[in-house]
Amino acid sequence: MTYDLWYWDGIPGRGEFVRLALEAGGIPYRERARDPGADESVLINDMQSARKHPPFAPPYLVAGKMTLGQTANILLFLGEKHGLAPESLEGRLWVNQLQLTIADMVAEAHDTHHPISASDYYEDQKEEAARRAKVFREERIPKFLGYFERLLDGPQAWLAGGAKWTYVDLSLYHLVDGLLFAFPKRMATVAAHFPNVFALHERVTALPELQAYFSSGRRLPFGEGIFRQYRELDAA
Amino acid sequence: MTYDLWYWDGIPGRGEFVRLALEAGGIPYRERARDPGADESVLINDMQSARKHPPFAPPYLVAGKMTLGQTANILLFLGEKHGLAPESLEGRLWVNQLQLTIADMVAEAHDTHHPISASDYYEDQKEEAARRAKVFREERIPKFLGYFERLLDGPQAWLAGGAKWTYVDLSLYHLVDGLLFAFPKRMATVAAHFPNVFALHERVTALPELQAYFSSGRRLPFGEGIFRQYRELDAA
Repeated sequence: MTYDLWYWDGIPGRGEFVRLALEAGGIPYRERARDPGADESVLINDMQSARKHPPFAPPYLVAGKMTLGQTANILLFLGEKHGLAPESLEGRLWVNQLQLTIADMVAEAHDTHHPISASDYYEDQKEEAARRAKVFREERIPKFLGYFERLLDGPQAWLAGGAKWTYVDLSLYHLVDGLLFAFPKRMATVAAHFPNVFALHERVTALPELQAYFSSGRRLPFGEGIFRQYRELDAA
Repeated sequence: MTYDLWYWDGIPGRGEFVRLALEAGGIPYRERARDPGADESVLINDMQSARKHPPFAPPYLVAGKMTLGQTANILLFLGEKHGLAPESLEGRLWVNQLQLTIADMVAEAHDTHHPISASDYYEDQKEEAARRAKVFREERIPKFLGYFERLLDGPQAWLAGGAKWTYVDLSLYHLVDGLLFAFPKRMATVAAHFPNVFALHERVTALPELQAYFSSGRRLPFGEGIFRQYRELDAA
């Protein structure tokens, strides 16, 4: 079965967490919203089509008769079905727990540039963004990355502790990648405190299972999504 | 086995979503942070104790040798183990997906009074809170509640569609309860648009499985947590 992944074209966004798992797992999928000639209406029409379990928002995955929404929920399904998570219940719940913690930080990273309203322009909430970004840089980045650092038992470790990566390692990689894009000065300052997190980022960058994807041109660059490069929101 | 639920004393908070499932499911649990004489240090010390899978933040549930964090993850575990979720994989993923959508709205409800920093006083972010709360009242409440309304097939329906409630119905009840506390004027205005959501709230209020809990005095009142009653943040 080939899955249909539905997400906005043009930004990595939350869809990228699912995409990385599909790509690294060698799992066949299509993205019809990114077909040649497709525009936003393709996704909007599909969202509005009648289905048993309508998603609240993209990304969602159509798997045969099932439609699955919420990034962490899609990954929970893929992880168990395709061996991208530990086999034990305890291990799968642990990976899900960490994925939800990553999701919390992703939401906070988004709100650094849109602290008042996701549907208004950044320019209309710049002052509030400056205040929120300062708190994010100084309090939240150390708190979240410090947590993940403590979970990693050395520079060769994966989050679930086994010999092979799980989907949450790919997600932590992408989170760090986004933070490096959005907050390069701050990340340079804190790097020395989180060597295992940064080492994990390097190891996923070099993961054999992802090289075809990385060189395909399909991995979308950061820009207008969750992670944005507003220089005024970054500081050492 | 008696579970240990760990959460801050004094506020319903995210712990209440877990508590409602435990109570309605008739599942034995303790809350050692709410024992007579316990203060905050009891929870802080437990958080800092060495464990295989340390939580990022409360609530967390200790189930024998397992420690489970993240509200939706705890409910995923309890739902499957204690029959508080559908039996099919598709049904369990659907309930998890909806729980995560509720979690998204809960985070946004919190940020109406703390849009800049969770660790600063409300008084230091009142202006930003007023702006964010307006967007929440006018755009986000209709969007989220409209979504849940469309999922409910009439005033007797449960979210997963079966004849019996699942844990996500309890969570939607608590979300609506919190919104009624924090935004009474706005909720009075929108009530007519979401009759099935409000009917579900009424039915959970009257659920036989929860009456002992509701009359026990153990259900903490809203106040200083996620849902707060700042009159200046509400409007019709």
